Amino acid sequence: MLQTNTNYLGVSENYLFSTIAQKIKAYVADHPDRDIIRLGIGDVTLPLAPAVISALQSAVDEQSHQETFRGYSPDLGYDFLRRTISEQDYMSRGCRIDPDEIFISDGAKCDIGNLQELFSENTDVAICDPVYPVYADSNLMAGRNINYMPCREEFGFLPDPAASGSDPCLIYLCFPNNPTGAAITKGELQLWVDHALKTGSVIIYDAAYEAYISDPSLPHSIYECKGAEACSIEVRSFSKNAGFTGLRLGFTVIPKELRINGTSLHDMWARRHSTKYNGAPYIIQRAGEAVYSPEGRKQTRSQIDYYMRNANLIMSTLKDAGYSVTGGLNAPYIWMKTPGTLSSWEFFDLLLEKAQVVGTPGSGFGACGEGYFRLTAFGEYEKTKEALSRIVNLI
Amino acid sequence: MLQTNTNYLGVSENYLFSTIAQKIKAYVADHPDRDIIRLGIGDVTLPLAPAVISALQSAVDEQSHQETFRGYSPDLGYDFLRRTISEQDYMSRGCRIDPDEIFISDGAKCDIGNLQELFSENTDVAICDPVYPVYADSNLMAGRNINYMPCREEFGFLPDPAASGSDPCLIYLCFPNNPTGAAITKGELQLWVDHALKTGSVIIYDAAYEAYISDPSLPHSIYECKGAEACSIEVRSFSKNAGFTGLRLGFTVIPKELRINGTSLHDMWARRHSTKYNGAPYIIQRAGEAVYSPEGRKQTRSQIDYYMRNANLIMSTLKDAGYSVTGGLNAPYIWMKTPGTLSSWEFFDLLLEKAQVVGTPGSGFGACGEGYFRLTAFGEYEKTKEALSRIVNLI
Repeated sequence: MLQTNTNYLGVSENYLFSTIAQKIKAYVADHPDRDIIRLGIGDVTLPLAPAVISALQSAVDEQSHQETFRGYSPDLGYDFLRRTISEQDYMSRGCRIDPDEIFISDGAKCDIGNLQELFSENTDVAICDPVYPVYADSNLMAGRNINYMPCREEFGFLPDPAASGSDPCLIYLCFPNNPTGAAITKGELQLWVDHALKTGSVIIYDAAYEAYISDPSLPHSIYECKGAEACSIEVRSFSKNAGFTGLRLGFTVIPKELRINGTSLHDMWARRHSTKYNGAPYIIQRAGEAVYSPEGRKQTRSQIDYYMRNANLIMSTLKDAGYSVTGGLNAPYIWMKTPGTLSSWEFFDLLLEKAQVVGTPGSGFGACGEGYFRLTAFGEYEKTKEALSRIVNLI
Repeated sequence: MLQTNTNYLGVSENYLFSTIAQKIKAYVADHPDRDIIRLGIGDVTLPLAPAVISALQSAVDEQSHQETFRGYSPDLGYDFLRRTISEQDYMSRGCRIDPDEIFISDGAKCDIGNLQELFSENTDVAICDPVYPVYADSNLMAGRNINYMPCREEFGFLPDPAASGSDPCLIYLCFPNNPTGAAITKGELQLWVDHALKTGSVIIYDAAYEAYISDPSLPHSIYECKGAEACSIEVRSFSKNAGFTGLRLGFTVIPKELRINGTSLHDMWARRHSTKYNGAPYIIQRAGEAVYSPEGRKQTRSQIDYYMRNANLIMSTLKDAGYSVTGGLNAPYIWMKTPGTLSSWEFFDLLLEKAQVVGTPGSGFGACGEGYFRLTAFGEYEKTKEALSRIVNLI
């Protein structure tokens, strides 16, 4: 027989950000003269750092000579990058993650979308609400049931480990959080690790925004928690810490210690990588390596500072105007309450039509996001300032 | 509950080419002084064409300035590349494939591995034997049954449409073929399209090697056959026609006309792309565009001619030495019979140990590949010549 995967019927017809893009496109078609400011999708606006550009140029040059040309990358990533990540992201923070526990990919989104394949169809999945849509959509497409864990303002938008149940399941966590901007302390994250170890669950920890942490006491990696190697997978991105949204680079850590009924998830992921993937481009892995050089670190740090200056501006301006806002301290996202009784999409339409500012409706991230709205700090400073003055003048 | 995807137990522990890489590594460790010549994996050896390098350099430069920086690509690919492909690969050959029926990706291997997700778990799958392992492995990992269609020398290594059965199923075809190098005529391919239309089957047509066709009467695309838009998906690669093995770029064509019980596979693939993928890098899509420029066409043509000169040399030398060889005329692969009663892996070991030449054992591509051996034309000319003299002197 031949049949389509009917699980696709369980996801909404469009990916959230595709829907927003279509709404903007329609508005622009009707109002070609309006100047739209986009604080919606989390795309960066600063150009690539000089150290990254210079690494790209050298690597492109290597690809032009027979002696230095490189074809297929190693499926799991070049050693030079895996070693650098191991040393600078993990060993330096006391986490024993070896280079061969790090899998280089073309981005955190792909890894997040594909990791669920390692689990059986009837695995239970626990996901925060509100949440980055990929965790939910990729599992719905595979026909799994999802247990949504509400993240409410009164608890700092943190989910409660008890909400994932007492049976073994697959738990998705993201801190600093997209979309709420909430951060988690080491003690709070340790409770999750302890819970996973106790119930036999696996945590997929999305640490894409760790570079935005300003509070030195907060954990950058789940492996800073005791016992995490036996129950956690961590996903990281170069998109937000170094502006690689258009270059595509990320990685996933699966410790060798992590096993389910004796089966190594590390080995399964290696098998998947070698079968359905062909490695990230050499020139882009070299660009990734440059992010960790002394110049690269300094330059990307100053990009993050630039965006966090936007975050501060958004937070303080909206607060002064009487809005209720959270996030934005250890994350590039500001999570605001919509004014009055406006729904998230009503506020989206209002902002687009009256202020020509684009944000992301909180309800697009889940039912608990209704009545909230996400703004990103990734815009240009002057434009962000202008957007805020338009929002404030709306009231 | 939490369980691993036990379908992974149905695939061999290692991907074929990973096994070969491990064997070579072990041999090199024991014999560090030996000069190994690799005619195994289909990786190219010539550097990127000047037109491609120049496009990469310009695009990298754009990424270094705020005014020209580009972040997230459109999920489905940049219009400039989709339009170029539509015009130059399809419209020019009389195939009506619109730009929005073309999905840009980071390589044919990923698309080939992921396309099966659009189909239900109990979809029947028909695959050639011998075959590129990804078709089989990706379906085994999803728990599907595979019906292998034998491709035997007496029938020019072409499968018989009747072998896929009379029920609707998912059929994988690859021409010019990897690993046998066999080509298909337009008339023979039309039989497959007619068969698919009659049975309600879908063909996934892997045309990664179309650039190696020298016989002008052979089809480069399945859409040259009548009715193919209603039953066929086509996958293409920049790896072999322009040396992008280390850059990663490919595309998949899904015509809007292709529906299963009213469901559009085009829309499903768009939903998958936007959920689990984030677009190919801008700089690499610009490099892909340059392949179609007049200089790009000329330069990549001369690369293909270089490799086909190797193919001719391999064919004629082995024939003269009494070997039975096929392929190599419209494909960069030469498919040879192992001498005497040697199995494919025995011949692999013999060549590695006695001649330090690496090829690919035919049995690695399926049971019908036993007793055969694949050599690739992607080596350097002088090294290919040296490898042949070592092989010939073995006898």
